[in-house]
Amino acid sequence: MTTQITQTEPSQIDRMFQALADPSRRAMVERLSRGPASVKELASPIAMALPSAVKHLKVLEDGGIVHSTKSGRVRTYSMNPTALDFIGQWVQQREQALNIAFDKLAQAMAELPEEDEEA
Amino acid sequence: MTTQITQTEPSQIDRMFQALADPSRRAMVERLSRGPASVKELASPIAMALPSAVKHLKVLEDGGIVHSTKSGRVRTYSMNPTALDFIGQWVQQREQALNIAFDKLAQAMAELPEEDEEA
Repeated sequence: MTTQITQTEPSQIDRMFQALADPSRRAMVERLSRGPASVKELASPIAMALPSAVKHLKVLEDGGIVHSTKSGRVRTYSMNPTALDFIGQWVQQREQALNIAFDKLAQAMAELPEEDEEA
Repeated sequence: MTTQITQTEPSQIDRMFQALADPSRRAMVERLSRGPASVKELASPIAMALPSAVKHLKVLEDGGIVHSTKSGRVRTYSMNPTALDFIGQWVQQREQALNIAFDKLAQAMAELPEEDEEA
């Protein structure tokens, strides 16, 4: 029996998580969260060659996390302000669900018939 | 000139984001946030063959998001309670930085010499 894995086109959300699964790209997002920057300004602090930086920025653009505008010869990158909202909300919902599950477990344990400690 | 990209072993954080870059694995995390489950219970709702489910669960385990315990012939998967904390905090820090950057921009714009509307 062969294992069949359905390969579908990655969704925007898949690409967003994928884009953040790299320390250089996360460093770029950290920098861009403090304000717009050029490729050079993004590449220098992480000692990255400009062509590599451009490739990583493309992945971040494809993930909908950043966008760029060109003025003359300089391309400036900026965060999409609501880009990380989905991830933040998704994580928060999981944490809320976990807390509810823990509370239910604690309640179920509290309702167990107590062993008589005096016996 | 060749572009040199330094390939390093993915970190735990990289693997965590990578693990969540797939809709089936996110569905498993959503299920496990509501309580522990067997492979079968995780595979059925997303109509996935068990061997595929096991592979996806391995990725989630490698990402430190879930762990499993075996009792008799049944392996049960559970969330690592603090696994998503890093991502939640990382996103929150970026959003805070973005807000500060926007506030600074707004302040800078407010301090610009006003054009005299009466002129």
